[in-house]
Amino acid sequence: MWRVEKKKGWMMALVIVAPELDPSPWTAALQAVDPDLDIRVWPNHGDKRDIEFAITWNHPAGELLQYPNLRCIASLGAGVDHLLRDRSLPKGIRVTRLVHPLQTLRMTQYVLMAVLNHHRSFERYRERQAERRWSQEEIVTCSDEVNVGIMGLGNFGVDAAAKLTQIGFHVLGWSRTEKRIERVQTFFGDDQLNAFLSQTDILVCLLPLTPKTTDILNRHTFEKLRPGAYVINVARGEHLVEEDLLDALDRKHLSGACLDVFRAEPLPPNHPFWHHPRITVTPHIAVGDHPSLVASQIVENYQRMKANKVLLNQVDLKKGY
Amino acid sequence: MWRVEKKKGWMMALVIVAPELDPSPWTAALQAVDPDLDIRVWPNHGDKRDIEFAITWNHPAGELLQYPNLRCIASLGAGVDHLLRDRSLPKGIRVTRLVHPLQTLRMTQYVLMAVLNHHRSFERYRERQAERRWSQEEIVTCSDEVNVGIMGLGNFGVDAAAKLTQIGFHVLGWSRTEKRIERVQTFFGDDQLNAFLSQTDILVCLLPLTPKTTDILNRHTFEKLRPGAYVINVARGEHLVEEDLLDALDRKHLSGACLDVFRAEPLPPNHPFWHHPRITVTPHIAVGDHPSLVASQIVENYQRMKANKVLLNQVDLKKGY
Repeated sequence: MWRVEKKKGWMMALVIVAPELDPSPWTAALQAVDPDLDIRVWPNHGDKRDIEFAITWNHPAGELLQYPNLRCIASLGAGVDHLLRDRSLPKGIRVTRLVHPLQTLRMTQYVLMAVLNHHRSFERYRERQAERRWSQEEIVTCSDEVNVGIMGLGNFGVDAAAKLTQIGFHVLGWSRTEKRIERVQTFFGDDQLNAFLSQTDILVCLLPLTPKTTDILNRHTFEKLRPGAYVINVARGEHLVEEDLLDALDRKHLSGACLDVFRAEPLPPNHPFWHHPRITVTPHIAVGDHPSLVASQIVENYQRMKANKVLLNQVDLKKGY
Repeated sequence: MWRVEKKKGWMMALVIVAPELDPSPWTAALQAVDPDLDIRVWPNHGDKRDIEFAITWNHPAGELLQYPNLRCIASLGAGVDHLLRDRSLPKGIRVTRLVHPLQTLRMTQYVLMAVLNHHRSFERYRERQAERRWSQEEIVTCSDEVNVGIMGLGNFGVDAAAKLTQIGFHVLGWSRTEKRIERVQTFFGDDQLNAFLSQTDILVCLLPLTPKTTDILNRHTFEKLRPGAYVINVARGEHLVEEDLLDALDRKHLSGACLDVFRAEPLPPNHPFWHHPRITVTPHIAVGDHPSLVASQIVENYQRMKANKVLLNQVDLKKGY
């Protein structure tokens, strides 16, 4: 019935539902791609029946049920865990995520920076600088003797693996299903997780957040890593059991960690990570928002939806990524 | 005449002349390659007539004139400026330097680390962490909008350029003579230096030290760079006019510098670089010594010398690299 009425004059509109974000750069970037788009910004969505396409980041649970003509939900990021944790998500709606090569490069840059700062003792040299102390490391470990283990071999994991290999690291990869990647020693599934961990000196978490990967960085995982291992989490805060990290650092089994994501963001001021001498905290900046970069991808999917075409970067809702 | 006498029973020996270094790992690494080598360590060189091959790092000026049968000098590093500054260097002797792919990768790692720490505001985030402050950068500059200008397009420069390009930076290169490198915008000679500098946001010095490149990082060079440019020197301390750097930082024309090499090493405790808030000091560790990695290259050249073959990585003494 709504189809008939729609033809009689409803608007076809998009809505941005992202309570934490300033929507104006997004609206501007989308309109720069197509000035004719009718873009609404939650909570000022106008007639809810107009909305066919929702662009979301941490939307209020249940909100998307309010749009009777919704056909597609586009995540404003590479992850869709923020969407899928809404149990009242309307059924039968296609979900897409953003995958842009420049954003992948930004993630790779962050991973390289964290790996290199650890491998090349950057922070130790900065401490010595503060003491005006000229002192070279006595033992120089070449990077080909260091195993970087990447958990998650999607766009981000594969690109980071390639670039780390190119600058001399030996790279291992672990994923849920089997993957083969040139010059990377790959492992998959629960059965091979321990074999992967037991050879890893620097662990990089680039997994999607799903029920199966929640809390995967825990005391059992850390115990399997090589002594003195270093942990980098650039995926989601919920991957990490925070107390287990603190404990493994206290016991010196881990030498340090670099974290960009946290269970609570912003990280609360009294959180022990802030002042821990061996934890580097950055405020979820590994990739960052780039409205002008990705707006064309969103508009492309909006047009594909209207033309009933296959969407770009559609999420498998069963897998969760 | 000495040839005749030598046949009568002189030894053929190598000497290590490196007053600042512990020679034992070098001796061990060379003997691991060829246990029959007769390796002497200055000043205990035995009969000077035995020495045909000298392995040197910052040798005392004039010392190499003492060996009447010297035929080859091998630098213990990639640079030979320490050798060529000895004006009494014996004439007609071949000079080699060390070029090992893993050492090139170590240099590239350092350059990437310095570029990424600057581009991704690593130190600013660490300062905010100390203040328990969650604050993302407001302006996210994508790396393809950042020009990294590399001075010196030898092994080190070419490898760093390739890896920086692969992670999304736009790379410019400048060298004394014309070079063409895929995906790198190249400049050469004095005439094109200003054009190169005027497009550079992050300057990386990877030049050999020669009379022409001494003091090349000076106030005129800095003035040509884009406002807010960052300077990375991983070549030789003598490339940099230190007061000019401090002045350009004071005037805020440069935003910072990362320095691994200095006119005096170790950097004196009272040097202003140590406590400068926008200078990162590391103690000449970009590459580091790797006797076990490079010993086979030295032995190979010793054998080539004995067989009158072309040497690996022979230096053009006129050019100085």
